[in-house]
Amino acid sequence: MNIHHDQLEVRTHGKGLYEITDDVQSKIGKRGVRNGTVTAFVQHTSCSLIVMENADPSAQRDLEEFFERLVPEDADYFTHHSEGSDDMPSHIRMVLTRTSETVPIADGKIQLGTWQGIFLFEHRRAPHRRKVFITTIGE
Amino acid sequence: MNIHHDQLEVRTHGKGLYEITDDVQSKIGKRGVRNGTVTAFVQHTSCSLIVMENADPSAQRDLEEFFERLVPEDADYFTHHSEGSDDMPSHIRMVLTRTSETVPIADGKIQLGTWQGIFLFEHRRAPHRRKVFITTIGE
Amino acid sequence: MNIHHDQLEVRTHGKGLYEITDDVQSKIGKRGVRNGTVTAFVQHTSCSLIVMENADPSAQRDLEEFFERLVPEDADYFTHHSEGSDDMPSHIRMVLTRTSETVPIADGKIQLGTWQGIFLFEHRRAPHRRKVFITTIGE
Repeated sequence: MNIHHDQLEVRTHGKGLYEITDDVQSKIGKRGVRNGTVTAFVQHTSCSLIVMENADPSAQRDLEEFFERLVPEDADYFTHHSEGSDDMPSHIRMVLTRTSETVPIADGKIQLGTWQGIFLFEHRRAPHRRKVFITTIGE
Repeated sequence: MNIHHDQLEVRTHGKGLYEITDDVQSKIGKRGVRNGTVTAFVQHTSCSLIVMENADPSAQRDLEEFFERLVPEDADYFTHHSEGSDDMPSHIRMVLTRTSETVPIADGKIQLGTWQGIFLFEHRRAPHRRKVFITTIGE
Repeated sequence: MNIHHDQLEVRTHGKGLYEITDDVQSKIGKRGVRNGTVTAFVQHTSCSLIVMENADPSAQRDLEEFFERLVPEDADYFTHHSEGSDDMPSHIRMVLTRTSETVPIADGKIQLGTWQGIFLFEHRRAPHRRKVFITTIGE
Protein backbone atom coordinates (compact mmCIF):
# COMPACT_ATOMS: atom_id res chain seq x y z
CA MET A 1 0.00 0.00 0.00
CA ASN A 2 1.32 3.42 -0.94
CA ILE A 3 0.67 7.09 -0.22
CA HIS A 4 0.98 9.71 -2.93
CA HIS A 5 0.57 13.45 -2.68
CA ASP A 6 -0.25 15.66 -5.65
CA GLN A 7 -1.21 19.29 -5.86
CA LEU A 8 -3.86 20.93 -7.95
CA GLU A 9 -3.90 24.60 -8.71
CA VAL A 10 -7.37 26.00 -9.37
CA ARG A 11 -7.63 29.48 -10.87
CA THR A 12 -10.78 31.19 -9.74
CA HIS A 13 -12.32 34.39 -11.08
CA GLY A 14 -14.92 35.33 -8.53
CA LYS A 15 -17.39 33.63 -6.22
CA GLY A 16 -18.91 30.34 -7.24
CA LEU A 17 -18.37 26.63 -7.84
CA TYR A 18 -15.42 25.24 -9.84
CA GLU A 19 -15.63 21.52 -10.56
CA ILE A 20 -12.39 19.55 -10.00
CA THR A 21 -13.72 15.99 -10.36
CA ASP A 22 -11.78 15.28 -13.57
CA ASP A 23 -8.57 16.69 -12.13
CA VAL A 24 -8.85 14.44 -9.07
CA GLN A 25 -9.58 11.40 -11.26
CA SER A 26 -6.60 12.27 -13.44
CA LYS A 27 -4.23 12.26 -10.43
CA ILE A 28 -5.58 8.86 -9.36
CA GLY A 29 -4.99 7.51 -12.87
CA LYS A 30 -1.44 8.84 -13.12
CA ARG A 31 -0.53 7.28 -9.76
CA GLY A 32 -2.05 3.97 -10.86
CA VAL A 33 -4.10 3.53 -7.70
CA ARG A 34 -6.73 0.82 -8.24
CA ASN A 35 -8.14 0.44 -4.75
CA GLY A 36 -8.08 2.85 -1.84
CA THR A 37 -9.16 6.35 -0.89
CA VAL A 38 -8.46 9.85 -2.10
CA THR A 39 -8.52 12.87 0.19
CA ALA A 40 -8.80 16.38 -1.24
CA PHE A 41 -7.68 19.12 1.16
CA VAL A 42 -7.93 22.82 0.35
CA GLN A 43 -5.14 24.94 1.89
CA HIS A 44 -7.15 28.14 2.33
CA THR A 45 -9.64 29.70 4.75
CA SER A 46 -11.63 31.75 2.24
CA CYS A 47 -12.66 28.97 -0.13
CA SER A 48 -13.84 25.44 0.58
CA LEU A 49 -14.71 22.03 -0.86
CA ILE A 50 -18.11 20.50 -1.41
CA VAL A 51 -19.62 17.51 -3.12
CA MET A 52 -22.58 18.79 -5.12
CA GLU A 53 -24.93 17.91 -7.93
CA ASN A 54 -23.07 18.49 -11.19
CA ALA A 55 -25.84 18.12 -13.77
CA ASP A 56 -27.99 21.22 -13.48
CA PRO A 57 -26.48 24.75 -13.30
CA SER A 58 -29.69 26.06 -11.67
CA ALA A 59 -28.94 24.00 -8.55
CA GLN A 60 -25.51 25.58 -8.30
CA ARG A 61 -26.90 29.11 -8.73
CA ASP A 62 -29.54 28.55 -6.04
CA LEU A 63 -26.87 27.20 -3.69
CA GLU A 64 -24.72 30.29 -4.22
CA GLU A 65 -27.70 32.58 -3.63
CA PHE A 66 -28.55 30.70 -0.42
CA PHE A 67 -25.06 31.36 0.94
CA GLU A 68 -25.23 35.04 -0.06
CA ARG A 69 -28.34 35.35 2.10
CA LEU A 70 -27.28 33.10 4.97
CA VAL A 71 -23.96 34.93 5.42
CA PRO A 72 -24.55 38.45 4.09
CA GLU A 73 -21.60 40.71 3.38
CA ASP A 74 -23.19 43.65 5.17
CA ALA A 75 -23.82 42.06 8.60
CA ASP A 76 -23.45 45.03 10.93
CA TYR A 77 -21.70 43.10 13.70
CA PHE A 78 -18.69 41.99 11.61
CA THR A 79 -15.44 43.61 12.80
CA HIS A 80 -13.01 41.65 10.59
CA HIS A 81 -12.93 43.81 7.45
CA SER A 82 -9.19 43.88 6.73
CA GLU A 83 -9.56 42.56 3.18
CA GLY A 84 -13.00 43.96 2.31
CA SER A 85 -16.65 43.10 2.80
CA ASP A 86 -16.30 39.59 1.32
CA ASP A 87 -13.52 38.71 3.80
CA MET A 88 -15.40 37.65 6.94
CA PRO A 89 -18.29 35.99 5.04
CA SER A 90 -15.72 33.89 3.18
CA HIS A 91 -14.39 32.41 6.43
CA ILE A 92 -17.88 31.63 7.71
CA ARG A 93 -18.96 30.03 4.43
CA MET A 94 -15.82 27.90 4.54
CA VAL A 95 -16.58 26.78 8.11
CA LEU A 96 -20.15 25.86 7.10
CA THR A 97 -18.90 23.69 4.24
CA ARG A 98 -15.69 21.59 4.16
CA THR A 99 -11.92 21.74 4.02
CA SER A 100 -11.34 18.05 3.25
CA GLU A 101 -13.29 15.30 1.53
CA THR A 102 -12.36 11.60 1.49
CA VAL A 103 -13.78 9.47 -1.33
CA PRO A 104 -13.30 5.73 -2.02
CA ILE A 105 -11.39 4.48 -5.09
CA ALA A 106 -12.31 1.09 -6.62
CA ASP A 107 -11.25 -0.37 -9.98
CA GLY A 108 -9.10 2.72 -10.46
CA LYS A 109 -12.05 5.08 -10.32
CA ILE A 110 -13.26 7.57 -7.76
CA GLN A 111 -16.57 6.17 -6.45
CA LEU A 112 -18.81 9.19 -6.72
CA GLY A 113 -22.53 8.71 -7.21
CA THR A 114 -24.13 9.39 -10.59
CA TRP A 115 -24.87 13.05 -9.92
CA GLN A 116 -21.99 13.89 -7.60
CA GLY A 117 -19.09 16.17 -8.47
CA ILE A 118 -16.29 17.59 -6.29
CA PHE A 119 -16.18 21.37 -6.37
CA LEU A 120 -13.96 24.10 -5.07
CA PHE A 121 -16.32 26.71 -3.64
CA GLU A 122 -14.72 30.13 -4.06
CA HIS A 123 -15.97 32.73 -1.56
CA ARG A 124 -13.86 35.73 -2.66
CA ARG A 125 -14.66 38.16 -5.45
CA ALA A 126 -11.10 38.75 -6.69
CA PRO A 127 -9.24 36.16 -8.82
CA HIS A 128 -7.18 33.65 -6.84
CA ARG A 129 -4.89 30.68 -7.42
CA ARG A 130 -6.10 28.01 -5.04
CA LYS A 131 -4.07 25.00 -3.92
CA VAL A 132 -5.71 21.65 -3.28
CA PHE A 133 -3.72 18.69 -1.93
CA ILE A 134 -4.78 15.36 -3.45
CA THR A 135 -3.63 12.42 -1.32
CA THR A 136 -4.24 8.83 -2.41
CA ILE A 137 -3.82 5.86 -0.10
CA GLY A 138 -4.01 2.47 -1.74
CA GLU A 139 -2.47 0.07 -4.17
CA MET B 1 -2.33 -3.13 6.11
CA ASN B 2 -5.40 -3.69 3.96
CA ILE B 3 -8.19 -1.74 2.34
CA HIS B 4 -11.73 -3.12 2.17
CA HIS B 5 -14.79 -1.64 0.56
CA ASP B 6 -18.33 -2.59 1.54
CA GLN B 7 -21.65 -1.10 0.59
CA LEU B 8 -24.64 -0.41 2.77
CA GLU B 9 -28.10 0.11 1.41
CA VAL B 10 -30.30 2.28 3.61
CA ARG B 11 -34.02 2.34 2.87
CA THR B 12 -35.52 5.65 3.83
CA HIS B 13 -39.19 6.60 4.07
CA GLY B 14 -39.18 10.37 4.32
CA LYS B 15 -37.09 13.13 5.83
CA GLY B 16 -35.18 12.46 9.00
CA LEU B 17 -32.29 10.65 10.66
CA TYR B 18 -31.55 6.94 10.12
CA GLU B 19 -28.86 5.53 12.39
CA ILE B 20 -26.27 3.29 10.69
CA THR B 21 -23.75 2.88 13.52
CA ASP B 22 -24.42 -0.84 14.01
CA ASP B 23 -24.20 -1.50 10.27
CA VAL B 24 -20.82 0.21 10.09
CA GLN B 25 -19.54 -1.70 13.12
CA SER B 26 -20.80 -4.94 11.57
CA LYS B 27 -18.76 -4.35 8.39
CA ILE B 28 -15.66 -3.67 10.48
CA GLY B 29 -16.20 -6.91 12.40
CA LYS B 30 -16.72 -9.01 9.27
CA ARG B 31 -13.53 -7.64 7.74
CA GLY B 32 -11.63 -8.39 10.95
CA VAL B 33 -10.06 -4.94 11.15
CA ARG B 34 -8.61 -4.37 14.64
CA ASN B 35 -6.78 -1.10 14.16
CA GLY B 36 -7.28 1.61 11.55
CA THR B 37 -9.93 3.95 10.22
CA VAL B 38 -13.33 3.62 8.63
CA THR B 39 -14.68 6.13 6.12
CA ALA B 40 -18.39 6.28 5.34
CA PHE B 41 -19.22 8.02 2.05
CA VAL B 42 -22.78 8.64 0.86
CA GLN B 43 -23.19 8.51 -2.93
CA HIS B 44 -26.03 11.02 -3.22
CA THR B 45 -26.60 14.79 -3.29
CA SER B 46 -30.01 14.87 -1.60
CA CYS B 47 -29.11 13.07 1.64
CA SER B 48 -26.05 13.37 3.84
CA LEU B 49 -24.13 11.95 6.80
CA ILE B 50 -23.83 13.34 10.29
CA VAL B 51 -22.51 12.27 13.65
CA MET B 52 -25.21 13.11 16.18
CA GLU B 53 -26.38 12.39 19.70
CA ASN B 54 -28.19 9.03 19.62
CA ALA B 55 -29.76 8.90 23.07
CA ASP B 56 -32.64 11.36 23.01
CA PRO B 57 -35.17 11.50 20.15
CA SER B 58 -36.10 15.08 21.09
CA ALA B 59 -32.62 16.25 20.02
CA GLN B 60 -33.12 14.66 16.62
CA ARG B 61 -36.54 16.24 16.17
CA ASP B 62 -35.24 19.70 17.08
CA LEU B 63 -32.37 19.25 14.63
CA GLU B 64 -34.78 18.35 11.84
CA GLU B 65 -36.97 21.34 12.65
CA PHE B 66 -33.94 23.64 12.63
CA PHE B 67 -33.08 22.52 9.09
CA GLU B 68 -36.70 22.97 7.93
CA ARG B 69 -36.48 26.59 9.03
CA LEU B 70 -32.91 27.31 7.94
CA VAL B 71 -33.52 25.98 4.41
CA PRO B 72 -37.25 26.42 3.81
CA GLU B 73 -38.91 24.63 0.91
CA ASP B 74 -40.76 27.77 -0.18
CA ALA B 75 -37.80 30.16 -0.63
CA ASP B 76 -39.00 32.41 -3.44
CA TYR B 77 -35.60 32.69 -5.15
CA PHE B 78 -35.15 28.96 -5.80
CA THR B 79 -35.22 28.15 -9.54
CA HIS B 80 -34.23 24.46 -9.33
CA HIS B 81 -37.63 22.78 -8.90
CA SER B 82 -37.29 19.87 -11.32
CA GLU B 83 -38.10 17.23 -8.70
CA GLY B 84 -40.42 19.22 -6.44
CA SER B 85 -40.21 21.69 -3.58
CA ASP B 86 -37.96 19.43 -1.46
CA ASP B 87 -35.39 19.15 -4.28
CA MET B 88 -33.27 22.28 -3.89
CA PRO B 89 -33.44 22.36 -0.07
CA SER B 90 -32.13 18.77 -0.06
CA HIS B 91 -28.96 19.82 -1.91
CA ILE B 92 -28.36 22.76 0.41
CA ARG B 93 -28.93 20.68 3.56
CA MET B 94 -26.47 18.13 2.19
CA VAL B 95 -23.84 20.84 1.59
CA LEU B 96 -24.33 22.18 5.14
CA THR B 97 -23.74 18.72 6.63
CA ARG B 98 -21.37 16.02 5.32
CA THR B 99 -20.79 13.53 2.55
CA SER B 100 -17.99 11.58 4.25
CA GLU B 101 -16.99 10.86 7.82
CA THR B 102 -13.72 9.19 8.91
CA VAL B 103 -13.69 7.51 12.33
CA PRO B 104 -10.84 5.66 14.10
CA ILE B 105 -10.98 1.91 14.78
CA ALA B 106 -9.14 0.48 17.81
CA ASP B 107 -9.44 -3.00 19.36
CA GLY B 108 -11.81 -3.88 16.53
CA LYS B 109 -14.31 -1.21 17.51
CA ILE B 110 -15.31 2.08 15.97
CA GLN B 111 -14.15 4.76 18.42
CA LEU B 112 -17.27 6.86 18.76
CA GLY B 113 -17.88 8.77 21.96
CA THR B 114 -20.51 7.59 24.44
CA TRP B 115 -23.37 9.57 22.91
CA GLN B 116 -22.28 9.60 19.28
CA GLY B 117 -24.04 7.75 16.48
CA ILE B 118 -23.54 7.89 12.70
CA PHE B 119 -26.71 8.81 10.84
CA LEU B 120 -27.85 9.05 7.28
CA PHE B 121 -29.78 12.32 7.09
CA GLU B 122 -32.52 11.95 4.47
CA HIS B 123 -33.66 15.25 2.95
CA ARG B 124 -36.29 13.96 0.51
CA ARG B 125 -39.89 13.17 1.28
CA ALA B 126 -40.31 10.14 -1.01
CA PRO B 127 -38.87 6.71 -0.13
CA HIS B 128 -35.34 6.08 -1.40
CA ARG B 129 -32.71 3.36 -1.39
CA ARG B 130 -29.49 5.10 -0.36
CA LYS B 131 -26.00 3.72 -0.95
CA VAL B 132 -23.21 4.30 1.54
CA PHE B 133 -19.65 3.15 0.84
CA ILE B 134 -17.87 1.82 3.93
CA THR B 135 -14.09 1.77 3.47
CA THR B 136 -11.78 0.39 6.16
CA ILE B 137 -8.04 0.92 6.14
CA GLY B 138 -6.10 -1.07 8.72
CA GLU B 139 -5.02 -4.47 9.89
CA MET C 1 2.95 1.82 6.35
CA ASN C 2 1.69 2.16 9.91
CA ILE C 3 -1.34 3.37 11.82
CA HIS C 4 -0.99 5.14 15.14
CA HIS C 5 -3.69 6.40 17.48
CA ASP C 6 -3.11 9.11 20.04
CA GLN C 7 -5.51 11.02 22.23
CA LEU C 8 -5.56 14.68 23.04
CA GLU C 9 -7.40 16.10 26.00
CA VAL C 10 -8.53 19.69 25.52
CA ARG C 11 -9.71 21.59 28.59
CA THR C 12 -12.30 24.17 27.64
CA HIS C 13 -13.69 26.99 29.76
CA GLY C 14 -16.71 28.19 27.84
CA LYS C 15 -17.81 28.69 24.26
CA GLY C 16 -15.22 29.52 21.65
CA LEU C 17 -12.28 28.32 19.59
CA TYR C 18 -9.32 26.41 21.07
CA GLU C 19 -6.43 25.89 18.67
CA ILE C 20 -4.91 22.38 18.66
CA THR C 21 -2.59 22.67 15.63
CA ASP C 22 0.62 22.40 17.67
CA ASP C 23 -0.71 19.43 19.64
CA VAL C 24 -1.54 17.58 16.42
CA GLN C 25 1.89 18.36 14.93
CA SER C 26 3.52 17.18 18.15
CA LYS C 27 1.82 13.77 17.91
CA ILE C 28 2.95 13.43 14.28
CA GLY C 29 6.52 14.24 15.31
CA LYS C 30 6.58 11.77 18.20
CA ARG C 31 5.29 8.99 15.94
CA GLY C 32 7.93 9.85 13.35
CA VAL C 33 5.48 9.92 10.46
CA ARG C 34 7.10 11.62 7.43
CA ASN C 35 4.50 11.02 4.75
CA GLY C 36 0.81 10.26 5.10
CA THR C 37 -2.37 11.68 6.56
CA VAL C 38 -3.61 12.66 10.00
CA THR C 39 -7.27 12.45 10.99
CA ALA C 40 -8.55 14.33 14.02
CA PHE C 41 -11.86 13.03 15.40
CA VAL C 42 -13.71 14.65 18.28
CA GLN C 43 -15.64 12.20 20.47
CA HIS C 44 -18.46 14.54 21.49
CA THR C 45 -21.75 15.90 20.16
CA SER C 46 -21.64 19.34 21.80
CA CYS C 47 -18.31 20.54 20.45
CA SER C 48 -16.79 20.20 17.00
CA LEU C 49 -13.70 20.67 14.84
CA ILE C 50 -12.99 23.32 12.26
CA VAL C 51 -10.11 24.56 10.20
CA MET C 52 -10.05 28.34 10.54
CA GLU C 53 -7.90 31.39 10.07
CA ASN C 54 -5.50 31.56 13.02
CA ALA C 55 -3.93 35.00 12.56
CA ASP C 56 -6.60 37.52 13.53
CA PRO C 57 -8.70 37.17 16.71
CA SER C 58 -11.40 39.43 15.21
CA ALA C 59 -12.21 36.74 12.62
CA GLN C 60 -12.73 34.21 15.40
CA ARG C 61 -14.97 36.55 17.37
CA ASP C 62 -17.12 37.31 14.33
CA LEU C 63 -17.43 33.59 13.61
CA GLU C 64 -18.60 32.91 17.17
CA GLU C 65 -21.12 35.75 16.97
CA PHE C 66 -22.43 34.41 13.65
CA PHE C 67 -23.17 31.03 15.26
CA GLU C 68 -24.85 32.68 18.26
CA ARG C 69 -27.26 34.33 15.84
CA LEU C 70 -27.70 31.43 13.40
CA VAL C 71 -28.54 28.98 16.19
CA PRO C 72 -29.96 31.08 19.02
CA GLU C 73 -30.30 29.61 22.49
CA ASP C 74 -33.85 30.89 22.88
CA ALA C 75 -35.47 29.34 19.78
CA ASP C 76 -39.03 28.75 20.94
CA TYR C 77 -39.47 25.42 19.14
CA PHE C 78 -36.59 23.61 20.90
CA THR C 79 -37.84 20.78 23.14
CA HIS C 80 -34.46 19.26 24.07
CA HIS C 81 -33.53 21.29 27.16
CA SER C 82 -32.29 18.55 29.47
CA GLU C 83 -28.89 20.18 30.06
CA GLY C 84 -29.86 23.83 29.72
CA SER C 85 -30.42 26.41 26.99
CA ASP C 86 -26.99 25.85 25.40
CA ASP C 87 -27.69 22.10 25.01
CA MET C 88 -29.67 21.88 21.77
CA PRO C 89 -27.80 24.73 20.04
CA SER C 90 -24.53 22.88 20.77
CA HIS C 91 -25.71 19.81 18.83
CA ILE C 92 -26.85 21.89 15.86
CA ARG C 93 -23.63 23.92 15.76
CA MET C 94 -21.70 20.64 15.82
CA VAL C 95 -23.73 19.27 12.90
CA LEU C 96 -23.13 22.48 10.90
CA THR C 97 -19.35 22.20 11.40
CA ARG C 98 -17.29 18.98 11.58
CA THR C 99 -16.52 15.94 13.68
CA SER C 100 -13.45 14.79 11.75
CA GLU C 101 -10.80 16.47 9.61
CA THR C 102 -8.19 14.67 7.49
CA VAL C 103 -5.02 16.61 6.60
CA PRO C 104 -1.99 15.49 4.55
CA ILE C 105 1.45 15.01 6.12
CA ALA C 106 4.58 15.58 3.98
CA ASP C 107 8.22 15.89 5.12
CA GLY C 108 7.02 15.18 8.64
CA LYS C 109 4.78 18.24 8.74
CA ILE C 110 1.05 18.71 8.64
CA GLN C 111 0.31 20.44 5.32
CA LEU C 112 -1.91 23.28 6.44
CA GLY C 113 -1.97 26.49 4.42
CA THR C 114 -0.26 29.62 5.73
CA TRP C 115 -3.28 30.93 7.62
CA GLN C 116 -4.96 27.67 8.57
CA GLY C 117 -5.20 26.29 12.08
CA ILE C 118 -7.15 23.32 13.48
CA PHE C 119 -9.52 24.32 16.27
CA LEU C 120 -11.79 22.61 18.71
CA PHE C 121 -15.01 24.63 18.66
CA GLU C 122 -16.59 24.44 22.11
CA HIS C 123 -20.36 25.03 22.12
CA ARG C 124 -21.06 24.64 25.85
CA ARG C 125 -20.74 27.31 28.51
CA ALA C 126 -19.50 25.08 31.34
CA PRO C 127 -15.88 23.84 31.50
CA HIS C 128 -15.28 20.47 29.82
CA ARG C 129 -12.47 18.02 29.18
CA ARG C 130 -12.74 17.14 25.50
CA LYS C 131 -11.20 14.09 23.88
CA VAL C 132 -9.83 14.21 20.35
CA PHE C 133 -8.51 11.08 18.61
CA ILE C 134 -5.45 11.76 16.45
CA THR C 135 -4.87 8.97 13.92
CA THR C 136 -1.87 9.00 11.59
CA ILE C 137 -1.56 6.71 8.59
CA GLY C 138 1.81 6.71 6.87
CA GLU C 139 5.46 5.92 7.15
